[in-house]
Amino acid sequence: MSTLGQWLDLIGVAASAVAGALVAGRRQFDWLGVAVIAGVTAIGGGTVRDLLLDRPVFWIANPSYLQAALAATAFTLLYARRRRIPERVLETTDALGLALFGIAGARIAVGLGHDGVIAVVMGVITGSFGGLLRDVLCNDIPMIFRQGQFYATAIILGCSLYVLLIGQGLETNLAAGAGMLAILGLRIAAIVWNLRLPVFRLPPEDR
Amino acid sequence: MSTLGQWLDLIGVAASAVAGALVAGRRQFDWLGVAVIAGVTAIGGGTVRDLLLDRPVFWIANPSYLQAALAATAFTLLYARRRRIPERVLETTDALGLALFGIAGARIAVGLGHDGVIAVVMGVITGSFGGLLRDVLCNDIPMIFRQGQFYATAIILGCSLYVLLIGQGLETNLAAGAGMLAILGLRIAAIVWNLRLPVFRLPPEDR
Amino acid sequence: MSTLGQWLDLIGVAASAVAGALVAGRRQFDWLGVAVIAGVTAIGGGTVRDLLLDRPVFWIANPSYLQAALAATAFTLLYARRRRIPERVLETTDALGLALFGIAGARIAVGLGHDGVIAVVMGVITGSFGGLLRDVLCNDIPMIFRQGQFYATAIILGCSLYVLLIGQGLETNLAAGAGMLAILGLRIAAIVWNLRLPVFRLPPEDR
Repeated sequence: MSTLGQWLDLIGVAASAVAGALVAGRRQFDWLGVAVIAGVTAIGGGTVRDLLLDRPVFWIANPSYLQAALAATAFTLLYARRRRIPERVLETTDALGLALFGIAGARIAVGLGHDGVIAVVMGVITGSFGGLLRDVLCNDIPMIFRQGQFYATAIILGCSLYVLLIGQGLETNLAAGAGMLAILGLRIAAIVWNLRLPVFRLPPEDR
Repeated sequence: MSTLGQWLDLIGVAASAVAGALVAGRRQFDWLGVAVIAGVTAIGGGTVRDLLLDRPVFWIANPSYLQAALAATAFTLLYARRRRIPERVLETTDALGLALFGIAGARIAVGLGHDGVIAVVMGVITGSFGGLLRDVLCNDIPMIFRQGQFYATAIILGCSLYVLLIGQGLETNLAAGAGMLAILGLRIAAIVWNLRLPVFRLPPEDR
Repeated sequence: MSTLGQWLDLIGVAASAVAGALVAGRRQFDWLGVAVIAGVTAIGGGTVRDLLLDRPVFWIANPSYLQAALAATAFTLLYARRRRIPERVLETTDALGLALFGIAGARIAVGLGHDGVIAVVMGVITGSFGGLLRDVLCNDIPMIFRQGQFYATAIILGCSLYVLLIGQGLETNLAAGAGMLAILGLRIAAIVWNLRLPVFRLPPEDR
């Protein structure tokens, strides 16, 4: 992957770690618990992807991702105790991480010669399983199930676009850029217009 | 594995996905959350088995399992909103999935040359960890710990029978059939006569 | 690894299984649920380590670990119903398991040629993820996040000492012994003097 790609990945990892550390802070975990939750949020999705695809786990192969997550956690522990991090900043970095991680996951699956449906699933896992594991560890129902705010949906649509475009013969970096923009745009549109997926309701007697 | 075996596996995956989708529907997750829960229920156990045994994850090697799970989820989303799926149908498909998945897990472990005890453990993991992961994601105490209704117990006994029979030199398909019938029979007997495992109680002062 | 090392590992596995079985007993799981929880507590951390490092899972490669966990669970099911296991005995075996597992994890990572930071993370995972998975399955917030009693912290410091000492050229068994003593000492000191990590508190308006 290009140097630009690695920098974007490091930014995505750091942004997710900040978001994870703040969730842990709301629960008054101790410093180590905050570091574990931040780490799981930042590198959990990519870890599950690498285990499933039987490739070396990315943060073990290249410890700089782990260091970025730890540095971002330390920053959050020191900074966020004093000043509030604005919600808009968090939502933007989160949407950025979603776009970067989602397409990275799909790209790796395509590179290994897997099907389009596997590529989209790997995009969803890379983009959302870090937050899912964080919520499981915090004993919450995972946010991606509850909010329905075009979260994993944005990844599915963006990764499908990426798979479609490279299927049409488009250069892979261009297709990746288009997929990322689609995820970013859908996620931001979902926040601005409060778009939501329909909820699955069973008939009353079946609950 | 035979073509019959693959068809049985696809049926097991689809049945588990329906059961998972209904559990998610009771919690009013959105459509995507329903799909994730259905997928985890249907392919989670086999995924953990494949990771532990260091073999290619079955639904990545052969995406038709994933497609069966998605199709069954779509069917449930469309059908179950209108009509009730009878409890008996669910319990029967569930028992069928248990028998199919449990013996499939034990068989793969034996085929890789592992011990009988590892084969039984892989049977239990393949048959019950999909439901266990589903319950963890739904923030429930896993059902297999609570109900004690000869659930994983049926898998243990059926897989032990399978291991014993092939140890006696019986042909592997016959042994697998006997093991599946044992699981099915025990599970149905447990439902009909409400058989349960004893609960582990500590002396009062130790709680 | 030496024969002494294997015996220590088996003792660590058995001690963790007893602790896990007692936690499950407090929740009145049935016998099989108790066995699953005891097994996950005893071998879960090493399993996650082996998956991440892409090496054969230790209890599949050598089923005697699984047998030790099952024997310890059976003992607990029979013994603990009648007599109370003193808290001090549990805390001591737990601290022993922490020291043995933590350093074993770091040692394996170093043996595979990984960075010091990866070795420390593998020590933490091996020593604490069994209990973390147990708490997730029991639908609790993991104890390592709540108590803050120098639990994973003791592993971090002990494993860092181990990595430092072998970096200085010390013989690996001596370094491992020093690391284990450090973990044991820190953990016991934390219990005796009730040492705790600071809790991460957000400013009130940010909760």
